[in-house]
Amino acid sequence: MEFKHLCLVRFKDGVVVDDIIQELSKLAAELDMIKFFGWGKDVLNQDALTQGFTHVFSLCFDSAEDLAAYMGHEKHGAFAATFMAALDKVIVMDFPFVVAKPAPQPEA
Amino acid sequence: MEFKHLCLVRFKDGVVVDDIIQELSKLAAELDMIKFFGWGKDVLNQDALTQGFTHVFSLCFDSAEDLAAYMGHEKHGAFAATFMAALDKVIVMDFPFVVAKPAPQPEA
Repeated sequence: MEFKHLCLVRFKDGVVVDDIIQELSKLAAELDMIKFFGWGKDVLNQDALTQGFTHVFSLCFDSAEDLAAYMGHEKHGAFAATFMAALDKVIVMDFPFVVAKPAPQPEA
Repeated sequence: MEFKHLCLVRFKDGVVVDDIIQELSKLAAELDMIKFFGWGKDVLNQDALTQGFTHVFSLCFDSAEDLAAYMGHEKHGAFAATFMAALDKVIVMDFPFVVAKPAPQPEA
């Protein structure tokens, strides 16, 4: 079962979000323990639902141990310092991800 | 590009979360416009990071139009009434999901 590290954030005014995403993409490409990285920006803008959060970042690992190895990696430390300084607010959730309805597989 | 509907929640005391998950799994199985349903419960329990949220629910659709069709479906209406009544707090984010590092594919 994959282990997810999910961040909801709102960036400070003036932050160049594309630069942050590019940096995290580079980190994900470099570190083998990151099995998947995806992100999104809310487009419905319903503040009562989003509570002001604008972006979601989703990293996937094979296990909680791999997440811990990532959190302890020096490249994560360097990125996290930049990332956290750019945030107005953040929520982080870490969980084994249960797939209740799998995505349809493309036909062979 | 897939379109995600992501909910972070904290349930009220006394709510049987397994029943809610079972109900949402049944709904996802019944409705074709839901392409994927997964969920997780935070296991690191770092309140400063989770802000007290405990569960994540992730529904995926082919498009924002399919999400809108789901939101307008009578079966969603019935479920949502139960779901919202069970929640202490909730954040909902709706976004096209950008895959920056795809998951490795199993070898053929």
